[in-house]
Amino acid sequence: MRPFELTVEEAAAAIAARALSPVELVDSVLERCDAVEDRLHAYVTVRAQQARRDARRAEREILGGLHRGPLHGIPYGLKDLIDAAGIPTAAGSRAWADRTPGRDSTVAARLRAAGAILIGKTHTHECGYGLLTPQTANPWHADAVAGGSSGGSAVAVAAGSALFALGTDTGGSIRVPAALNGTVGLKPTYGLVSRHGVAPLSWSLDHVGPLTRTVRDADTVLRVLAGHDPSDPASATAPAHRSAARPDTPGVRGVRGLRGVRVGVPGNYCFDHVDPQVEAAVRATVDLLGELGATVVPVELPLVEYVEATQWGLMAPEASAVHEETLRATPDLYGPDVRLLLEAGRHVSALDYLRAQRTRSLIGDAWTRLFDGVDVVVAPTTPITAARRGQETVRWPDGVTETVTDAYVRLCSPANITGLPALSLPVGRDSAGLPIGAQLIAAPFAESVLFRVGTAVEDHRTDAVGLAGVPQADLIHRPQTSEAGPGGSTREQ
Amino acid sequence: MRPFELTVEEAAAAIAARALSPVELVDSVLERCDAVEDRLHAYVTVRAQQARRDARRAEREILGGLHRGPLHGIPYGLKDLIDAAGIPTAAGSRAWADRTPGRDSTVAARLRAAGAILIGKTHTHECGYGLLTPQTANPWHADAVAGGSSGGSAVAVAAGSALFALGTDTGGSIRVPAALNGTVGLKPTYGLVSRHGVAPLSWSLDHVGPLTRTVRDADTVLRVLAGHDPSDPASATAPAHRSAARPDTPGVRGVRGLRGVRVGVPGNYCFDHVDPQVEAAVRATVDLLGELGATVVPVELPLVEYVEATQWGLMAPEASAVHEETLRATPDLYGPDVRLLLEAGRHVSALDYLRAQRTRSLIGDAWTRLFDGVDVVVAPTTPITAARRGQETVRWPDGVTETVTDAYVRLCSPANITGLPALSLPVGRDSAGLPIGAQLIAAPFAESVLFRVGTAVEDHRTDAVGLAGVPQADLIHRPQTSEAGPGGSTREQ
Repeated sequence: MRPFELTVEEAAAAIAARALSPVELVDSVLERCDAVEDRLHAYVTVRAQQARRDARRAEREILGGLHRGPLHGIPYGLKDLIDAAGIPTAAGSRAWADRTPGRDSTVAARLRAAGAILIGKTHTHECGYGLLTPQTANPWHADAVAGGSSGGSAVAVAAGSALFALGTDTGGSIRVPAALNGTVGLKPTYGLVSRHGVAPLSWSLDHVGPLTRTVRDADTVLRVLAGHDPSDPASATAPAHRSAARPDTPGVRGVRGLRGVRVGVPGNYCFDHVDPQVEAAVRATVDLLGELGATVVPVELPLVEYVEATQWGLMAPEASAVHEETLRATPDLYGPDVRLLLEAGRHVSALDYLRAQRTRSLIGDAWTRLFDGVDVVVAPTTPITAARRGQETVRWPDGVTETVTDAYVRLCSPANITGLPALSLPVGRDSAGLPIGAQLIAAPFAESVLFRVGTAVEDHRTDAVGLAGVPQADLIHRPQTSEAGPGGSTREQ
Repeated sequence: MRPFELTVEEAAAAIAARALSPVELVDSVLERCDAVEDRLHAYVTVRAQQARRDARRAEREILGGLHRGPLHGIPYGLKDLIDAAGIPTAAGSRAWADRTPGRDSTVAARLRAAGAILIGKTHTHECGYGLLTPQTANPWHADAVAGGSSGGSAVAVAAGSALFALGTDTGGSIRVPAALNGTVGLKPTYGLVSRHGVAPLSWSLDHVGPLTRTVRDADTVLRVLAGHDPSDPASATAPAHRSAARPDTPGVRGVRGLRGVRVGVPGNYCFDHVDPQVEAAVRATVDLLGELGATVVPVELPLVEYVEATQWGLMAPEASAVHEETLRATPDLYGPDVRLLLEAGRHVSALDYLRAQRTRSLIGDAWTRLFDGVDVVVAPTTPITAARRGQETVRWPDGVTETVTDAYVRLCSPANITGLPALSLPVGRDSAGLPIGAQLIAAPFAESVLFRVGTAVEDHRTDAVGLAGVPQADLIHRPQTSEAGPGGSTREQ
């Protein structure tokens, strides 16, 4: 196994055992970048020289007895909405060019302190305001979108050009590309991870979180990211993240490891207008949880009819407020899709915005109460797998048509509106070979439940998605007509 | 001294000593109501029979050994925006008629549990959206306004038809009538006192607080009101109010009792366009604080140029959101002033509202930092004393003209925008015999500092304002040409 194929957990264990040097690992990841970037375009900028210097420093530190923890020497990608000192944050937009921050964002600073090595900045849909990331290609299908807005981060992790990456999520922007590229993606509880030094899209809905190849890796990265930051006004002072998916949690790895866990399966909303292959993979995941000892409970999701209006009623004016001056000064520098959204947001009335705020409170209260009765809700992350490039709408058998964007947002945005933590993890592939994601949602600050349940799924599925494009020649998977089967994973232990 | 003339502190001591029965006290207050209500109109509703029944019950409890604390048996008035079970909450508006709550607001419930006796509901400017309370008369001058929107509460306390009262304050609505009628009024820190069961005007600026005759009484009432309430989404979980103005605080009553206290005196904003008699009384208060050992520090108030736009940018759309359906259904039931404001608020854009929200954050941070350098800021509560009925504008010597409403709001609204606690206390009267209020502002949750400094002022002034209209024949003070002098106070101990 080449080093870039390792999970964070595996690489960290090898580094700690001095069986692997950070220099080897970073070299391997940079070689992988060289091999795949021409086709995938996950990165805006790769800082190869600096990453190699960082790797040598990590090697020296570790050999000298200073081991900073499980991310020491681990190479990662940073979405280009998130500041790293000295590297431009262009936000995928010509309107934002030439903004080179002098200081790290809080999350970049935390990763730096933990010894993680920044490989480069990953592509984002312009300003984070879209779900496609057209700059970047899906590694599983030559003609499929990467998803977004954290498309570059998901593709880098899926293809092995980073061991993990950070993304941002305002209406699904971590979870959607995670699902479409076969990675894990976590949108943490609102307030758990600082947004200081992160370009806002809609500050009351914005979240920062990890994209990884395994649930355990998401847990490991979150433990470094989480914690109060007075520089983010929304940062929670709640107890920092504690893991429950660690090996010391009794029973997690056993076959009856989920005894006592109540898994809610929505009877409404989440399985309406969902591709049958996606539905089948998610329901198979629910069955697996039942076999592992969990109690499966039907639930009705409250107030779902207000989700879309609330998401847009908050996001559109907040995004327009963020971009107000730039839009006035240089409207032509925005792409047509983002410019249209920003112009539209200027015309929302305060009354409509306040109605969305008040509805959000009601939805948040009602969804949080749901978790009195269940520990986790399981649903598809997206109703369809990766759309074809240029595809604008989805038509359902009953004649209902929606835009691809609306389809990708609608199952993710409840967790943005409510602030609840939500994890997307791969649970198979469709007949075209495209990954399918299942979403787990839990109570505020109950990330540990997501990791516990997600790890159980990961440990027991035989058809996990795995790393894309291994071997290299098969980097872009061609359309297949066969049923979903194991990917080219080399991740199994 | 007749019982209605007592402060809460005096009445509580007499009741505890069994020198005064709650029945005597309530009878005395009700007789006072009978004597003055024809002229003052402080109350919408007086529940005489029920108050007498409550008084007999309190008497029985106390005689039976159940003493609920310093408010047991104390009669009070409740602003008619605040629910008391079984009594209509009309909010001073025909548009809100026929709303009889089945349950107490949280503050009414807390006062009930503390044994306080509700005399009746006091007049408010319609929906709390104005600073005049035209229904009610100022007891100090036949032709002067009561101020508002908690005008009824201030007049009831000033005239002796309640020993204390509750008000609400969105842009000065407790402090303005307190200043104009010679009472103490406290707007606590945002989140310290629950608004559950209180008709909102602008939920991000609304506060509930006490109006009393002395600073000590405000402290006593606040201790009953304060505390977390999950039914108010903005309720703080910060430590509940602790008093520092109690006799056990060393040095408070001594002549050097304020040694170490840093008193900030604004060099900008708060003394611009202020009546010279008001300025003189407030500066005399600052001199007194210096004599009592405080260190007087000049301060510059930050971002004051944005205060007015921020106050209106938040209040106008929030108020219109609260009244949206009623305004659509029955616009003619609102008075012309309130209807105009509510109609105007419908046309505010979300961008303008968000700009006000973001500016509020900046103002809040900057003002809170101010209290790293000082413990309290002293300023006038209002730039003018009570306006004449029908007076619409104030013209300043430099030719600048403003509306009476703008004049009353502008020195109060910083504490609404920032959420900082602010106390108004009487510091003299002008040549027309009208009371002058000084305002003390402190850091978040530093009410104890306000009480400590306010009590020191109260204990050492020889020209305190005192109870209005004693003796009865002199209830409405005629204009005087003499300098401010002692009121008809019988409060001195």
